[in-house]
Amino acid sequence: MDVWTEALQDSGMDHRLDRDTSNCSIARTLEVVGEKWTILILREVWYGSSRFGDFERVLGCPRNLLAGRLRMLVEEGILATETYKEPGARSRPKYVITPMGMDLVPAVMGLLHWGDRYRADPEGPAVLTRHRGCGAQVNVHVRCEQGHSVREEDIESVPGPAFRMKAAE
Amino acid sequence: MDVWTEALQDSGMDHRLDRDTSNCSIARTLEVVGEKWTILILREVWYGSSRFGDFERVLGCPRNLLAGRLRMLVEEGILATETYKEPGARSRPKYVITPMGMDLVPAVMGLLHWGDRYRADPEGPAVLTRHRGCGAQVNVHVRCEQGHSVREEDIESVPGPAFRMKAAE
Repeated sequence: MDVWTEALQDSGMDHRLDRDTSNCSIARTLEVVGEKWTILILREVWYGSSRFGDFERVLGCPRNLLAGRLRMLVEEGILATETYKEPGARSRPKYVITPMGMDLVPAVMGLLHWGDRYRADPEGPAVLTRHRGCGAQVNVHVRCEQGHSVREEDIESVPGPAFRMKAAE
Repeated sequence: MDVWTEALQDSGMDHRLDRDTSNCSIARTLEVVGEKWTILILREVWYGSSRFGDFERVLGCPRNLLAGRLRMLVEEGILATETYKEPGARSRPKYVITPMGMDLVPAVMGLLHWGDRYRADPEGPAVLTRHRGCGAQVNVHVRCEQGHSVREEDIESVPGPAFRMKAAE
């Protein structure tokens, strides 16, 4: 009897397969950032861009798409706007990452390093991530709260406090 | 002068904004797994599903979409097929994760925990990830190769060996 079956007893349902997936945190995160341009905008913010024109220049995506994604990221609390003004020009917004946005870094870095490992050009990665100050390469690691380094195959997924089954039809 | 400008000198281009982004490892990873259903299939494999009917039951997505995503994941080397046979039924393929697929776990766990933190139901997460054996909660952490725990704001992105500028138009 696996951990999913232990969680609820004897309903005739298969607890893993008939669970209500509508509150899955992966799916909810993908609702916010699960679109290519959104992740690429965050990549550029992370690489140092903040102005509309910068995103447009590097990404080459349509202006209305870019404007929509930036607005959504601000509404979701991942980016915030500040005002800047260049001499002789009108004030414009610039986009800065919030602490909530910073917390997406492990996920985005996981995507980056997977690509570096399995889909890079023969020369290697186009961009390296390093620890400012010490200069060593930065990576994402899976660890448990007891401080153990955890191999992927030693991760167990179990029902949490908001686990529930699909409503009977 | 930032790290991007140091990388190449004096071409009149802005090195960060006019770089060739076609070999970005984030974008290349998103070409493989940057689609909601693909990530959700991997989630279910990770939670223990392996059979076509299991994915169909829990995800509720169209069969042809599911078949296409599974085929793509096998072609890309993220899943592999094995054959199983139930008494009285014909042999069918089941889907198991490869080491290459396992290496996506930090990225997917980053998405999961961001959602747990910022988009969970009031009761908490629907699913918990824990270290098999010790039972403690598992998390993704950013660390450098020197062993320092690295805050997101202390990560520096710099041009790597495959960095190149866009070709002049």
